[in-house]
Amino acid sequence: MADNRMKDNKDKEISRAIIKRLPRYYRYLGELIDEGVEHISSSGLAHIMGVTASQIRQDLNNFGGFGQQGYGYNVKNLYDEVAKILHIDRIHKIVIVGAGNLGHALAQYANFERRGFDIVALFDRDEKVIGTTVGGKPVYAIDELTKFVNDNEVEIVALTIPKEAAREIAEKLKDTNIKGILNFAHTDLHVSENITVENVHLTDYIMRLCYKMHE
Amino acid sequence: MADNRMKDNKDKEISRAIIKRLPRYYRYLGELIDEGVEHISSSGLAHIMGVTASQIRQDLNNFGGFGQQGYGYNVKNLYDEVAKILHIDRIHKIVIVGAGNLGHALAQYANFERRGFDIVALFDRDEKVIGTTVGGKPVYAIDELTKFVNDNEVEIVALTIPKEAAREIAEKLKDTNIKGILNFAHTDLHVSENITVENVHLTDYIMRLCYKMHE
Repeated sequence: MADNRMKDNKDKEISRAIIKRLPRYYRYLGELIDEGVEHISSSGLAHIMGVTASQIRQDLNNFGGFGQQGYGYNVKNLYDEVAKILHIDRIHKIVIVGAGNLGHALAQYANFERRGFDIVALFDRDEKVIGTTVGGKPVYAIDELTKFVNDNEVEIVALTIPKEAAREIAEKLKDTNIKGILNFAHTDLHVSENITVENVHLTDYIMRLCYKMHE
Repeated sequence: MADNRMKDNKDKEISRAIIKRLPRYYRYLGELIDEGVEHISSSGLAHIMGVTASQIRQDLNNFGGFGQQGYGYNVKNLYDEVAKILHIDRIHKIVIVGAGNLGHALAQYANFERRGFDIVALFDRDEKVIGTTVGGKPVYAIDELTKFVNDNEVEIVALTIPKEAAREIAEKLKDTNIKGILNFAHTDLHVSENITVENVHLTDYIMRLCYKMHE
């Protein structure tokens, strides 16, 4: 089904907007599974997610529409289907560069495995932390990063380091086989065509909150 | 100028899209100031931000259009104007609930003051951390939270705690005078009409990255 989305530009655009919402669907469906809910109607899902039932039906129709009249959606099926579209139905290896507070927070973030991600190691240049473990994961010297990611088929590198260091590391990663960078440094990184970058700017959120508070 | 934006719904909608982009403008303008750049053309700004010059002109026209023909924008003026629109031209007091790794990372986040925010204290329920300091800020017992935020005119509470605890604390904050919650817990919080919530879901970013990597 997913491939149909790509058949023309208009479809692709629709898809992009939905993709942005998919992680949220995935989060809510995961909560429903935890609560033992097996089926849910579009209006039930709409209620807990704070959107309209027609939005839910429209979104879910786009990737197959698994609801049955008078029965609703099978929560587990829908959850698995969303995982498949997001490509998190298989595990992606991640390493974290920067074993500071944010690196620690990420490494110990609950439920990452459940969402298709496995943090395999951290990297730092501080001799004091190299050789230690964080959340059971080893911390290696930053010099070993590029060899490690290639040898271990790491797909994602999370950068929890200041911006100058992030730019330097991103440059080195150009020649590796990684596919994505999750960048927490206070700068937008642009690496190469082969490496997708997702920039996470914590200060942007607090500024947006501040604006909305005053509306 | 800013008030004109609210004059009808269409204007308001245009504004919302721009508001989303403003923190990014603010970040780039801040970098230009750091680099000693005093003036920049719309095409220069477009180039470093990876957008079109017409997008820049359109956006900036919406809040006054400070560019001068053949001279460009005064970087510092534009920076100050963006700050004003985002209401970060004055300091907002923040407390952080949860003195764990993410709380530490936030408390030590560089340049928060420069962006209109002052972290005044952290709160935790762990006896071992109560009474210590994080980045020079005191850690108090969670029981003192509601009294503290009212007594000290705290406007924003950042929640860096698990979701059950976050829901519980959010409930208690309903009766305080705070204006906003920055929620990092893995759940969407809805508090009350008087309190704006910005939910920051780190896992959503990594899922989106994963999807884009496979596109």
